[in-house]
Amino acid sequence: MNIKQVLKIVSVLLLIISFFMLIPVFIAFYYDEVEVVKSFLIPIFLILIFFVLMLFLTRDKSRNIMSTREGFLFVTLSWIFASLFGALPFFLSGSIPHFTDAFFECMSGFTTTGASILTNIESLPKSILFWRSLTHWLGGMGIVVLTVAIFPILGIGGLQLIKAEAPGPTLDKITPKITETAKILWYIYIVLSITETLLLMAGKMTLFEALTQTFGTMATGGFSPKNRSIGHYNSAYIDIVITVFMIMAGTNFILYFRLITGKWRNIINNAELKAYLLIFLVSTVIITFNLHGRVYNSIGNSLRYAGFQAASILTTTGYSTTDFEKWPAISQIVLFILMFIGGCSGSTGGGIKVVRIVTLFKQGINEMKYLIHPRGIFSIKISGTKVKKDIVYAISGFVFLYLFMLLLTTLVVASGGNDILTSMVSALVTLGNIGPGFGKIGPAENYAFYQDYIKWFLSFAMMTGRLEIYTVLIILTTTFWKK
Amino acid sequence: MNIKQVLKIVSVLLLIISFFMLIPVFIAFYYDEVEVVKSFLIPIFLILIFFVLMLFLTRDKSRNIMSTREGFLFVTLSWIFASLFGALPFFLSGSIPHFTDAFFECMSGFTTTGASILTNIESLPKSILFWRSLTHWLGGMGIVVLTVAIFPILGIGGLQLIKAEAPGPTLDKITPKITETAKILWYIYIVLSITETLLLMAGKMTLFEALTQTFGTMATGGFSPKNRSIGHYNSAYIDIVITVFMIMAGTNFILYFRLITGKWRNIINNAELKAYLLIFLVSTVIITFNLHGRVYNSIGNSLRYAGFQAASILTTTGYSTTDFEKWPAISQIVLFILMFIGGCSGSTGGGIKVVRIVTLFKQGINEMKYLIHPRGIFSIKISGTKVKKDIVYAISGFVFLYLFMLLLTTLVVASGGNDILTSMVSALVTLGNIGPGFGKIGPAENYAFYQDYIKWFLSFAMMTGRLEIYTVLIILTTTFWKK
Repeated sequence: MNIKQVLKIVSVLLLIISFFMLIPVFIAFYYDEVEVVKSFLIPIFLILIFFVLMLFLTRDKSRNIMSTREGFLFVTLSWIFASLFGALPFFLSGSIPHFTDAFFECMSGFTTTGASILTNIESLPKSILFWRSLTHWLGGMGIVVLTVAIFPILGIGGLQLIKAEAPGPTLDKITPKITETAKILWYIYIVLSITETLLLMAGKMTLFEALTQTFGTMATGGFSPKNRSIGHYNSAYIDIVITVFMIMAGTNFILYFRLITGKWRNIINNAELKAYLLIFLVSTVIITFNLHGRVYNSIGNSLRYAGFQAASILTTTGYSTTDFEKWPAISQIVLFILMFIGGCSGSTGGGIKVVRIVTLFKQGINEMKYLIHPRGIFSIKISGTKVKKDIVYAISGFVFLYLFMLLLTTLVVASGGNDILTSMVSALVTLGNIGPGFGKIGPAENYAFYQDYIKWFLSFAMMTGRLEIYTVLIILTTTFWKK
Repeated sequence: MNIKQVLKIVSVLLLIISFFMLIPVFIAFYYDEVEVVKSFLIPIFLILIFFVLMLFLTRDKSRNIMSTREGFLFVTLSWIFASLFGALPFFLSGSIPHFTDAFFECMSGFTTTGASILTNIESLPKSILFWRSLTHWLGGMGIVVLTVAIFPILGIGGLQLIKAEAPGPTLDKITPKITETAKILWYIYIVLSITETLLLMAGKMTLFEALTQTFGTMATGGFSPKNRSIGHYNSAYIDIVITVFMIMAGTNFILYFRLITGKWRNIINNAELKAYLLIFLVSTVIITFNLHGRVYNSIGNSLRYAGFQAASILTTTGYSTTDFEKWPAISQIVLFILMFIGGCSGSTGGGIKVVRIVTLFKQGINEMKYLIHPRGIFSIKISGTKVKKDIVYAISGFVFLYLFMLLLTTLVVASGGNDILTSMVSALVTLGNIGPGFGKIGPAENYAFYQDYIKWFLSFAMMTGRLEIYTVLIILTTTFWKK
């Protein structure tokens, strides 16, 4: 384990982030928020110092190979350091005077969670709000590359259904392939982002609002520059555009690549996509009928609010168009159940992921078949491909650790004197990178009231959930550090 | 599939149950409740008719072999028929005037759940209360035999860690072994029951109360003839006796057999027992410190109430000595987490079971080791025995179906307009055979207010949970009925 080498690559990543920090600087000038500029320049300067320091400390250029173990450390440290430096603009500008809160908000951004400690969002400078939303977009970008190109190499918890062939012990061997994949995925990500921005501007949003809301959508993040989230606009057109783009952001990005290369069959046969859309449709229909006549008089409005909220929770975005805590019980429970599922693998969505749910469901059915025919041979097929037992194994281990982290986080939140529902949902929506939930952290509330230690633990939960549990927990084992 | 043959064996089981129905008849005479007697004689008479009818319909004596499939059907139908006939005394005596309620109460009894629809328990005739508690004891007896002797043959969801060697396709081959095992287990069950009864009588309980409370303890059921459950007695001695016996009832009964035969090493090395006691101790300690100074002034009283409630929920008994819904948040969350765990395999306890949790936990840790050393070989050992992959497979399938049933039940309860906490906890405590929970079904409340369809579904959930999920769900698959 060469920690210095890992930190050096982290510093390169920070350098890229510092480049993006220049955008809010321009915005600050544009909106005449000159006093905020130095809050961005200081972290940029600190990152530069960190980068030069790491360059100086690791002058041995011969070793640019990263082992799998160093890979895990790199990924985890990236999110921690990005949040530490990324929190500085919030903290230094006085927008979030308490550093714990600033770190929480930034981790929530980079993990595309969208849980906020802000009580009056609209009172902040535009440049700060832009940076807040930009952390979503950058985090989402990182996640797409991680899940599609890097996690399969690290062998994370059965997210890949077919294990990468001969992945090799080091990351560098496939660097050209990663770079290539990453480029295509980012291209798709950027094209979708531009499209949404233009569509939102067509709905009479300013460029600033269209961009920030797009960042929140495409990253399935949920930060909004408006106190009332998307409900602020009260526009059916905007609701529909964002619903569609949330669903698109929760879809495996590889499928867009297939779409471009004309491999329709691959898309139509994709079991995860089918299950994902089915879950979305079924929940939307249930909520629509539950809302109709009870909350909204027209079926159209019921459908509009139901579809938006189902998409928002399923994709783990966390936007809201109304306070769904005031909805009838069935609608609330459907949203609660969606909180356990999450988006597709290879998307910016969080949660357990649809493909894992589908695999375990088929596994459960298979076990019943074995009970009836103990000598039969039943295999699990996903999208027509047989799933190896090792993958099912990895998935079950993942889901168990996910539930374990869920209960642990619940316990920590409860230790602050919070009720069962608030504690459990706080755990569920931070670990699943959703954002708002039920109880004291409903869509009309925020995380500000939590004690500091709970905010730190929830930041940890957001990171653990975002990095597929294993990546973070593995670093806490003794085996990881041995020899 | 020979359904008539299955029903015949069910009728034999009912005949045994009808024999036990004679006990409350005597009690009715003793307590001068003569008007209730016919409410027991009618079901006894109906069972006799059913038995003779089945005898008449299945005169072909050559076929006394039961296939695995018929085994699943037999087990499920046993619980349904026992609850149908067992509900009649409640219904006919007018103690529970609504049949849905009577069935719910009886299913809750036979599944050793302890969820009640009664609002004033003490107003019922003694004989009816005795029958109510007796269903627990009989259900517990059935479960011990099922989990130790029959489920392993049916190959249920990895409850057995080492698959029965050459189980053979039919149940009859090992009948002598089953009969022998069953006899020893029942002997242990009866000896423990007598011991507890005597100890409770030493605590100044009447024979009637000592017996009924023992039935509730040994079966990890939770029905009490007192409105305030065990809190009625307000006696530290009784609390301690019942705490100890709840923990004993939640222990694998095979271990008592090992104890008798002097195989100490087997007990000391038992990983499930160690984990079970550790979970009990840790939760007791956390709750004790949380209660001390907040609810009770003395550490002794805090320990007494903490230990009792932790044991009651962990073992899935459901007795209470106080309204734990009024406890501080941490204590409540600890109890909430215990609701997911349950007792040991081969005990009368319900829930997911400790051995499954331990196995999946080790599986999760193993997956992390694989990530660090992709070429390493790591096996899961429980109590020094290597666990085969097939078992881990079966366990993960089980846990997933358990969670699936949990969410489905939550949705059904919510459809009646109930809040998230009440809906989820109702699902958790019926599926886990616990009884009381949080929200509208707290220890000071009951299930009477639910709509009929919810009561039927919760009865189904109690049965599904009690019969290890697979046994019931498998009957609902098309594969089961094919050919």
